[in-house]
Amino acid sequence: MNGAQSRAANTHAMTDSYAASGVNIDAGNAAVDRYREITGRRRDPRILEGIGGFGGCFEFRGYKDAVLVASTDGVGTKVLVAAELRCFDTVGQDLVNHCINDILCVNAQPLFFLDYFAVGKLDPEVAAQIVCGVAKACAENGTALLGGETAEMPGVYAHGHFDIAGTIVGAVERDALVDTTRVTAGDAIIGLPANGLHTNGYSLARRVLPTLRWPQALPGTAGTIGDALLAIHPCYLAHVRAVQAAGISIKAMAHITGGGLIDNVPRVLPGHLAARFDRSTWKVPAIAELIVREAALSVEEAHRTFNMGVGFCIVVSRDDARRSLDAARATLSAHPIAGAPDADAAIIGEIEPRHACGPAVVLS
Amino acid sequence: MNGAQSRAANTHAMTDSYAASGVNIDAGNAAVDRYREITGRRRDPRILEGIGGFGGCFEFRGYKDAVLVASTDGVGTKVLVAAELRCFDTVGQDLVNHCINDILCVNAQPLFFLDYFAVGKLDPEVAAQIVCGVAKACAENGTALLGGETAEMPGVYAHGHFDIAGTIVGAVERDALVDTTRVTAGDAIIGLPANGLHTNGYSLARRVLPTLRWPQALPGTAGTIGDALLAIHPCYLAHVRAVQAAGISIKAMAHITGGGLIDNVPRVLPGHLAARFDRSTWKVPAIAELIVREAALSVEEAHRTFNMGVGFCIVVSRDDARRSLDAARATLSAHPIAGAPDADAAIIGEIEPRHACGPAVVLS
Repeated sequence: MNGAQSRAANTHAMTDSYAASGVNIDAGNAAVDRYREITGRRRDPRILEGIGGFGGCFEFRGYKDAVLVASTDGVGTKVLVAAELRCFDTVGQDLVNHCINDILCVNAQPLFFLDYFAVGKLDPEVAAQIVCGVAKACAENGTALLGGETAEMPGVYAHGHFDIAGTIVGAVERDALVDTTRVTAGDAIIGLPANGLHTNGYSLARRVLPTLRWPQALPGTAGTIGDALLAIHPCYLAHVRAVQAAGISIKAMAHITGGGLIDNVPRVLPGHLAARFDRSTWKVPAIAELIVREAALSVEEAHRTFNMGVGFCIVVSRDDARRSLDAARATLSAHPIAGAPDADAAIIGEIEPRHACGPAVVLS
Repeated sequence: MNGAQSRAANTHAMTDSYAASGVNIDAGNAAVDRYREITGRRRDPRILEGIGGFGGCFEFRGYKDAVLVASTDGVGTKVLVAAELRCFDTVGQDLVNHCINDILCVNAQPLFFLDYFAVGKLDPEVAAQIVCGVAKACAENGTALLGGETAEMPGVYAHGHFDIAGTIVGAVERDALVDTTRVTAGDAIIGLPANGLHTNGYSLARRVLPTLRWPQALPGTAGTIGDALLAIHPCYLAHVRAVQAAGISIKAMAHITGGGLIDNVPRVLPGHLAARFDRSTWKVPAIAELIVREAALSVEEAHRTFNMGVGFCIVVSRDDARRSLDAARATLSAHPIAGAPDADAAIIGEIEPRHACGPAVVLS
């Protein structure tokens, strides 16, 4: 709609007539002021200022033969949980972390992020909290918040409802791209722990666990079901970089999102190989366990719908497995994952030849 | 939610239990199949295939000191017009063209685009038409469609409603960035014609023109009011490149979006300068004229809400004005703007000193 670099609401058109059509100009301006307050404090030096202003300008230096890697995503119906619990500062973090994990799978380093926030009726404080979450996760991961759009769209979104989506752009030297053809039988799979559902399976979760139950204590945790549903999708950038800093060449990485281990791991495996997981090697988060039990999901259904406790998989040669694990664990110990302070990395499986017509993922 | 490079719906999780929660798996898969059909035909050679698959990989070569330029946007409540008229192949084009115009203002060349399409209930054919529009506009402008996300979100979007947003990423050599500090009094402003409201002012337009009137003929045109409301936002990339190909150094460019001439032109002017426009030099599209009349908007209100017939402004030195105009007109003549075949470029104003406390835009 409008293309303001530093996020102007579509309430930019400031006539009274326009306001009368359902778009709240004052709220839009207040939201923009709050964004500037928030993002102004964390200005990335790679963002070039004062050049027109219809697009965000990012200084791109230091690469010899760069591949740009990008991903757009949302957080699914986790937005409905956030709206119901009136907790608006976490979904922005979910979104950024999710997107960074996606491009990390090919070894890309995040450069910048842009978000899109759309709402039926704009509340400047809510909008500011949403963007604050985005800015926080960007800052934590050395990612510039280059732009964003806030849209007030009466009629598209019901009152109190909103959606958020975002785009990450990263880069990697061409010769540093992950080369998944190097994966061979016998390689080890390191699993990095999840702290909950991350951003997948929320439509099912909400059906199984109606809102009335969200204030209830979640057995096995110190918090409520609602807390667990909103646990922030962790970013695995630091853990992966720690493994690489230990001199280990990662052969493949998979972000465990919609489709679980069963659908996501095969996306990075050569067709003649399968991944065998030993489910006894990691813990299932209490929230996932509860939903799987109450929905009576089979093992296969559960591992196709939820991450079931494995947020990210790293494939390394068997000889590198122990050192990789140590590096990942050291990072987890220095920076525990919020909502899962005791969760640990583990060697959770290995690569094996795939039988003709056999599954690409075996859960044992 | 999921981070599929080549657009997997969030319906990726294929359990019956998940389907029962309101997410239609078959529709998701059918939509993904249709996307592949559509985008597979237009594969950009700069997209690197077969590397993992959680992010889109784009070969970035040929720049010495690149600045990456990015913008995220939506098309506002134009989506409600599209939904009402069940016309789904145009809003994707609106979105891409709008985004390209935004980054063009600093002289960036588009590299790739990613879209986000979210809907209450997924209809594979509708989703395919939306993405088809995105793919078409990308292909027309040498832009790779690098990724996208389709989200089926029952509860967030009402039945029949959807939203679409997108992100463009482009690049420009640092020394080819538009330098708006070069703008001086006496410079000429070339206006490129609009073919309608583009993607702004739709909340007001829908209030003034209720859906019952959309099948009515629009006086002064061969089509209906509905046709005019859905006219595709033009892309001005070719016109700008034609001016530059004539050897002209453009000093500033403004995409006339939300806020109209009054708010958008000052974004690219040094603070001591103002833009004076002669409204007799261009034509107001019939649809804008109708709305302004029926809503009884003042001249100022109209030019703050709608583009009023000027889609894009190019500032050049007075000596270059005539040749710039000729180049723009030659391109318009070779590739007329859909929905406004007779619309022409014109010298529509000039830059002058700004009086202390005076407005940055003067409409005469």
